[in-house]
Amino acid sequence: MARVFSAQRLTDFAAAILHAEGVPQTDAATIAGLMVEADLLGGDGHGLFRLPRYCERLRAGGCNATPDIRIDKERGAMAVVDGDNGFGHLVMKFCADEAVKRARTHGIGWVGAHHSNHAGAAGVYAMIPLAHDMIGLYVAVGSANHMAPWGGLEALLSTNPIAVALPATGRQPVLLDMATTVAAYGKVKLAAQRGETMPPDWMIDADGNPLTDPLRAAEGLLMPIGGPKGYGLSLIFGLLAGTLNGAAFGRDVIDYNTDDDSVSNTGQFIVAIDIASFTDLDHFKAEIARIGDEMTGSALRPGFDAIRMPGERALSVRDERLARGIPVPDAVVAKLDDMARACGVPPLQEGNA
Amino acid sequence: MARVFSAQRLTDFAAAILHAEGVPQTDAATIAGLMVEADLLGGDGHGLFRLPRYCERLRAGGCNATPDIRIDKERGAMAVVDGDNGFGHLVMKFCADEAVKRARTHGIGWVGAHHSNHAGAAGVYAMIPLAHDMIGLYVAVGSANHMAPWGGLEALLSTNPIAVALPATGRQPVLLDMATTVAAYGKVKLAAQRGETMPPDWMIDADGNPLTDPLRAAEGLLMPIGGPKGYGLSLIFGLLAGTLNGAAFGRDVIDYNTDDDSVSNTGQFIVAIDIASFTDLDHFKAEIARIGDEMTGSALRPGFDAIRMPGERALSVRDERLARGIPVPDAVVAKLDDMARACGVPPLQEGNA
Repeated sequence: MARVFSAQRLTDFAAAILHAEGVPQTDAATIAGLMVEADLLGGDGHGLFRLPRYCERLRAGGCNATPDIRIDKERGAMAVVDGDNGFGHLVMKFCADEAVKRARTHGIGWVGAHHSNHAGAAGVYAMIPLAHDMIGLYVAVGSANHMAPWGGLEALLSTNPIAVALPATGRQPVLLDMATTVAAYGKVKLAAQRGETMPPDWMIDADGNPLTDPLRAAEGLLMPIGGPKGYGLSLIFGLLAGTLNGAAFGRDVIDYNTDDDSVSNTGQFIVAIDIASFTDLDHFKAEIARIGDEMTGSALRPGFDAIRMPGERALSVRDERLARGIPVPDAVVAKLDDMARACGVPPLQEGNA
Repeated sequence: MARVFSAQRLTDFAAAILHAEGVPQTDAATIAGLMVEADLLGGDGHGLFRLPRYCERLRAGGCNATPDIRIDKERGAMAVVDGDNGFGHLVMKFCADEAVKRARTHGIGWVGAHHSNHAGAAGVYAMIPLAHDMIGLYVAVGSANHMAPWGGLEALLSTNPIAVALPATGRQPVLLDMATTVAAYGKVKLAAQRGETMPPDWMIDADGNPLTDPLRAAEGLLMPIGGPKGYGLSLIFGLLAGTLNGAAFGRDVIDYNTDDDSVSNTGQFIVAIDIASFTDLDHFKAEIARIGDEMTGSALRPGFDAIRMPGERALSVRDERLARGIPVPDAVVAKLDDMARACGVPPLQEGNA
């Protein structure tokens, strides 16, 4: 069961809680807005659902409520940002704005961060440059290691996601938002809830054998897409988003889900690509739409209901949720309202949807 | 059976043939050197093996022997290069040099091309910035469509590869060089030669069923890594390397293997990342080595002989082949020597190894 709330209501609610927890009002509104953007895109496990965990780490000192986010290094098209252990959402918004600004002058803006934190849904940040007629690209070091290097058994890598967004005319933007593992942890948890068995390519156990019982997921490792290829992508994304920015990678990555008070030193980067520097903007956006039609209109494989462009589902969920509201499971509402009461914010259940 | 030749001998030979086919001497040497680099890295299907096909297209007018490669658009960190239908090797070398130059000033250099051609092994170009203490990234639209969009049956996408190279101190560089399909065509051909059956996840047939007989590969489609994820990567790489640069993508991609005289309008791009703009160079290179040790020294999964860093095999093959020479299969030597005789170049068999 779920209750439906408007995006605005959820944003105001999250902002009020964050502010009650010591986050300055403007920052709280920014973080809440980006959090609810994840819910709008259907990434329910990356949005409001995370608020209790964010606040736990905030209270335990694992995250800084009043960071001094600033440029640490810069040179023309690039910058490295010190997130001062603030919310990842805030740090990545800073980076995205900075990347857009640099792309306007240099054609490309590439802005990375160290001492950032979990920022929610990757796609949200890749979408920011679109409003400026730019392509957005976002890569992050995941907030817990769940994958071994190919041929190994130690969890030294995360699902390290990539998101890329490109604008189109007369069609939804293209929005790829993917982890480098076959299945995300959310899908594993869902299988557990439903009492289902996992396909043998999702996880291996501590001995390296396929793990198909999702109730045993905690002792398992996620498998990369394409074997050594997904391992290679996760590694490279980690080196570029983490190591290059002076952020944590490999054994230095803490488990954000169980560790309350360690500084995560999360690394991410955003690239903004100014389309008009490369080609005619209108032509490009029309081409993306034409290619979208070409792909989705091509011959269908038996057993499939449609060919989709990346992000097609998420962006139509967004339209629907903007129009009709966001369903929040009762258990999540209850947990959020417990938090609200504890910090003196009017609970969701008592307010208007 | 194979005969072994030094890299220098093969480079001189390929350069002589290219020059005999109308390519100016300096350009011929550059192309030959980059071609043999692919052989050194063990990418035997992307090196000298391709020379006969390159020359066929050169003679039929599909490729321009004397291109005027020039910058078409530019803005600070980026440029779009018009390859004037020259050899992809030459165009990509131009782009790599340009990307390095721009990264020196702007921290990042992002240089794409249209009207380029097949350039051989992706890793070769990602490695160019390393000599300048930069990270290299290369993405290409593949030279023939072998993959359908996820859920489809029409070959609208190629294996669109990505290659990324990062320098290390006291360790080989990290070199990821991968296609977005589960298996490359070369592996399919090898299975056919050996009379083996392919795993069911490599290809599907025209009806969408798994195709396991490699002799029927021509009627099949390669499958992407991670299903919709690999489709998404191939699509995004194609849009960034092709569409953004004004190069061919989707139905506009010709089949380079069967089409002699059409202009391919191949698109690729190279990014150079100036490490010292981000962090201390020595520290970074030491970190890459430390992480390499961390990964490869971690617990081994039963059934695996080692954990490797991406590119470890290719770069050790390179060392070995630089020291002991490159084995060229007899059938390839025979074909190359037929070409040599036809254009008045001393054949490999008669020269010194």
